[in-house]
Order: sequence, then structure tokens, then C-alpha cells
Amino acid sequence: MITSLSNAKIKNVVNLVQKSKVRNEQDSFVVEGVKMFLEAPLELVREVYVSQTYEQNLIHSTEPEKQEILEKLQKCGYETVSDECFQKMSDTLTPQGVLCVLKKLHYDLTNILQKTDSGSLFVFLENLQDPGNLGTIMRTSEGAGVHAVIMTKKTVDIYNPKTIRATMGSIYRVPFIYIEETRQTIELLKENKVRVYAAHLKGTTYYDSQDYTGSTAFLIGNEGNGLTEETAVMADTYIKIPMHGKLESLNAAIATSLLIYEAERQRRG
Amino acid sequence: MITSLSNAKIKNVVNLVQKSKVRNEQDSFVVEGVKMFLEAPLELVREVYVSQTYEQNLIHSTEPEKQEILEKLQKCGYETVSDECFQKMSDTLTPQGVLCVLKKLHYDLTNILQKTDSGSLFVFLENLQDPGNLGTIMRTSEGAGVHAVIMTKKTVDIYNPKTIRATMGSIYRVPFIYIEETRQTIELLKENKVRVYAAHLKGTTYYDSQDYTGSTAFLIGNEGNGLTEETAVMADTYIKIPMHGKLESLNAAIATSLLIYEAERQRRG
Repeated sequence: MITSLSNAKIKNVVNLVQKSKVRNEQDSFVVEGVKMFLEAPLELVREVYVSQTYEQNLIHSTEPEKQEILEKLQKCGYETVSDECFQKMSDTLTPQGVLCVLKKLHYDLTNILQKTDSGSLFVFLENLQDPGNLGTIMRTSEGAGVHAVIMTKKTVDIYNPKTIRATMGSIYRVPFIYIEETRQTIELLKENKVRVYAAHLKGTTYYDSQDYTGSTAFLIGNEGNGLTEETAVMADTYIKIPMHGKLESLNAAIATSLLIYEAERQRRG
Repeated sequence: MITSLSNAKIKNVVNLVQKSKVRNEQDSFVVEGVKMFLEAPLELVREVYVSQTYEQNLIHSTEPEKQEILEKLQKCGYETVSDECFQKMSDTLTPQGVLCVLKKLHYDLTNILQKTDSGSLFVFLENLQDPGNLGTIMRTSEGAGVHAVIMTKKTVDIYNPKTIRATMGSIYRVPFIYIEETRQTIELLKENKVRVYAAHLKGTTYYDSQDYTGSTAFLIGNEGNGLTEETAVMADTYIKIPMHGKLESLNAAIATSLLIYEAERQRRG
């Protein structure tokens, strides 16, 4: 059992939790909690840590759910750490007692375009900054059947612990890609017959008056500033969400959700 | 100018920011930032505080926007406080330099029901706990034209600084009511011919297959547990939002937004 706060493994997990740079160098990230552990694809699991109290709790329980956790722990292999060490590694105030280091996920947009063919649905996020918004967009994207979330490299790091928590496991299931070049990526989408819509305050067309049954991408701008002019001009169509009252804009995750669920509605119907 | 951190006014603002109990006792709450100050209804303003640096910045600026702020400040009356005092009162790491104590808002559901007549749109939140979710629901409710947000008394305090920030000013414009009795309130809605829908995982009817052009209320449950059984059974209809993938639920603010914007879409025609 690891009991020293200065143990190299403990220190490394703390760095992985806190620093995007360290996550990049090691091509790893950290997930916390029972749900995130149980849903983690086996081939991604690199290290698993369990707190002493939680391990005891599992061993002495007869609940089938806890048996399932124990079985997966035994399959993956894990290290027990003192509760104090666990609290240090954890990003939450009341940690659940299980935490793992996973290999990062890697997707290729060209591949996804080939597989999804004529009915693809994409979200393109430009410089989104709020970790909770990004996590919520991943979660809703799974619900709406989005094929990939594409992000500019200035978008907040999806492996941020707050974002991971807000995805509720969707981070394992919704492909996502950080891109280098916005122009090139939008051109690639267009070459693949994806129609590109910009959610834009200058839009004159309501979002629900367009046909999203063909391949579709929605461009969503940064929380404070919306889409940059350079990106917005590349869209085929500007769309807007009607707003009553004196409201100037909707939250970015809400706007995204309304758009992708409108596409879902049309595709279902 | 107030420069002492132990000044009674400073201490009182800190208490108002941090403690729901103090806000109740004084029937007051605190809003921060330029936007929240400019949009604050004059009749609610009780105290205004400006940081020394921000006051200087306003006085020496010729920008029309800053002139507007100065004019409203002069109309309301305000006190200058040292930057250190301002930082202490503020709930944010980088305060904007203006903060006010406002009288709480009070609404009456019976009144609202009389005024909105046959086309009312309500959100009913049962025990929502996340301040950001509540703020986002208020913001989206303004956008969708909701007439009131009704909340059980165990719902998070809407005057929480995080909630207020997330409303983006909608707290001034969307009526909201904390209720004592769920049963009584839902009965009152029904007596007034409001159709009551529960967003429920047991729903078999898709949310977009119902007609929301008449008076409508959506019941939304707590983030972790959904609606309680006692509340859910009072609904006229259970509805569900389709979910692809392996997702178990949507975020409460996202689910609410999809429902109220579906109502908005139908009412727009």
C-alpha cells in the first residue's frame, strides 16, 4: 500500500490531474469515480488506484454492484493507497475511492467522414473556454447521436477533470478531435458534402427552418465573443435561435443542444 | 471612502453574498458587475459599492458606455471602497468594480396565472441542486418566453452568486416562485387548465409529439434522482427525450431547454 504523499506515482497522478502539459507529454489522463471506472474501455487502462477504506468496503460487501467493481479491479490490476494519498490525488472534495490513469483517445476525422457517409452530424467548437460547457456538450452529443465533436486547439482541454465529470462517460463514446487549422477542416467537411451552419446572432433564418437530414456541421463560437469573423464566413448558412425578452444570447451548451436535437428530431421523423 | 475590512457595511455585504439565511432576514441579495448593475431595476437598488480604481477609471473615461454607468451611479447614490475591501466583498477572482445590494423580487403565482391566461408556459423544478443549472434555466427561460419558474423550497437558492451570474440578467425579468407545497401548487396549475408534463425516464411519449400550444408546465427533477414518485404521479403525461448511445440521462438544464424551446417552436407556429 502507498502511504507516502511524496511517492512518485502519487505525485505523477496529481500532475496529470492538474496540468494539461503533463497529460500531453504522457498521452494520459485521469478519471475518477465508480461510473467512470466501470465504463472505462479496458484497453485504455494504464493504472488504477483504490483508497484503503473503499477497498475494505468492497471486500466486505455482498452487493452485486460492488462485486462487479471488484472483478473489474482484479482484471485491471490496481494499487491500494492510504485515504490521505487518495484525497491528494483526487480533484473532488468527497472522492469515491477509485481513480484511474487512462491512455488518451485518438480519432481521425477523415476516417469518421468515410464511415458516416451521407448522414453525418458534427459539432464544431471554436475556442470554447468553460470546462463544464464542453463536458455538457459531449454528453448531449451522445444523446443526440452526434458523430464527432471537432474543436479548435484553443478550446479548453477536454481532459480537464471538470470536463470529464460533466461528460458522464460520453468522453469514452463520442469521438472528438482537436484540429490545427480551422479553414482546412471546414474545407474538408465541405468536400465531403457536409453542410456547414453557423449559429450566429446575425442569422436571419431560424434554426428549425433548415433541413439537417443530410450531412450537417454546426459551428459554435466562444462563450463571450461568439464565432470569429474568419470562421463564420466559411459557413454555408447563418442560423439563429429565436430569443424572447431582452436576452442577448444563450449559453453555448444550450445553443448547441437545441441545434443537435433539432437535427435528431428531423432524422428520427 | 471605506477602507477598513472590518467596516460594518463591508461585513454585511460579505454575509449577504455567502449566507442564504442572511439574505432571507434582510430580504436582500447582492449582484456583481457592470451588466448586472446597469440592468438592475432602480426600485430594487438599496446600496451600491464601487472600487476606488474603477471609480477613477470611470471618471477619467470619455467612452459613452462608461458615462452611462456614471450617470446611473449618480442616480442611485454609491459608496467608494478601497480595492482591498471590494475584493473582500466580491465572489469573483477578478471583480469588475461595481456591486449592489438589491431588494429581493416577489411574485405571486395566482396573479401570473390570471395574466397569462390560456397560453402560459411554466417550468417547475423539484429540488434542483446545482446553482449553475438553475441560472442557465432562468436564462433559457427568458429566451423561450417562459412565464414563470416555479421551485420547491429545497431547490438551490436563486440568490446564490453563482446562480445570479449564470442568469445573465434574466433574474430581473423571469418571474420565479419558491413554493411551500408541491401538491397544492400542481393542483392550482391544473385548476387553471395548465397541462402538466413530467420529464421522466419512464415516459413512452417523445417530448416533441405533444401539443404545447395551450397552457403548459414541465416538471423537472433533481440532477441525481429525477422527479420524486409523489410529484411525478401528479403529471398528466410522462414525456421523454430520445437518447442515442449509452447515455442514462441529460443534464437538467439541457433537458429543460429542449422542452421549453419545443413549446416555443410550436407557439411560433
